[in-house]
Amino acid sequence: MPDITGRDVKFRTPWFDLVSKKVKGMPGTTDIEEYYALDMPDYVSVLALDGSSRYILVRQYRPATETRTLEFPSGHVSDGETPEEAAKRELLEETGYLASSLEKIGCLIPDTGRTLNRLWCFYAESTEKVSGGEDGIEVVLSSADDLSGLVSSLKMGHALNLALLALAQAKDLITFPARTPVNGAENEE
Amino acid sequence: MPDITGRDVKFRTPWFDLVSKKVKGMPGTTDIEEYYALDMPDYVSVLALDGSSRYILVRQYRPATETRTLEFPSGHVSDGETPEEAAKRELLEETGYLASSLEKIGCLIPDTGRTLNRLWCFYAESTEKVSGGEDGIEVVLSSADDLSGLVSSLKMGHALNLALLALAQAKDLITFPARTPVNGAENEE
Repeated sequence: MPDITGRDVKFRTPWFDLVSKKVKGMPGTTDIEEYYALDMPDYVSVLALDGSSRYILVRQYRPATETRTLEFPSGHVSDGETPEEAAKRELLEETGYLASSLEKIGCLIPDTGRTLNRLWCFYAESTEKVSGGEDGIEVVLSSADDLSGLVSSLKMGHALNLALLALAQAKDLITFPARTPVNGAENEE
Repeated sequence: MPDITGRDVKFRTPWFDLVSKKVKGMPGTTDIEEYYALDMPDYVSVLALDGSSRYILVRQYRPATETRTLEFPSGHVSDGETPEEAAKRELLEETGYLASSLEKIGCLIPDTGRTLNRLWCFYAESTEKVSGGEDGIEVVLSSADDLSGLVSSLKMGHALNLALLALAQAKDLITFPARTPVNGAENEE
């Protein structure tokens, strides 16, 4: 495996540090190569159901995209809290839904080329609406059918959210209605 | 919608600029808030099948994670090429597989909080092995069953890749074998 011969913070923001790593031994070169990545708190994201088996989504303005997006409740892990506590807190703050328990379904890498943090994915099968949610965040409730349509039409287009969905599908926590039989077979309809 | 009152490059690297946006009118505040994001070339990622209906994966060292990861062939769009040309090129360079045609299945946002670029997702139903691939990149071929297992066990843990998979599933390009019936019903096995 290549060696990391140096690590350096190049720029600091209140949210993350931009770091550079010097790497020796990358394939095809004897040079020391410089790689840049963001060192920031871990992310959490929650696939949560309300009391009527609908998925809890949030619509909000995102300055990075300069648009309003439709996403799963998500946020950062703050100092002193576990990822599970962060997920429960973000869900409650953003939507007013309280999860009695959360199942940790996996820990992903947001971007293997560009981030040093992790994305903790949670599933909340059962929640209760206990408060009003957050100013500027609109709660949208969606059936599994509609969720599938939102993804295929790209109305939900945040890759980190789709990753949570793929993980939940691989673990059989959500199954979208099949429109065609298994991969490669003829559609009999 | 909030207003972007200023944009500024804070730090440049050969791969991206770290930019800041000043935003007025975010909910809950009259202050001008500063948001940071990475301005970089678009990403491409390809879900590709070889001549025996196996999915083409790549294993490589990633300095950001300091581990070898298992991923779909991916890369950046270079100046002067379309996302489709970039996807075809990256697939060929990394794996030696040439796609006769690529289907664009969607354009996602890698990280709605932190990136200004897009992730272009492609599907290549048919490819041919024409060359040796790239030094340092190991090609791994996987059935749909095995791919499902790689995701649920987190052996494939790159969120941007799982997003491609979720999009492909929503568009019925890949269906993992169902282990349980539709969401909420009893397992009859």
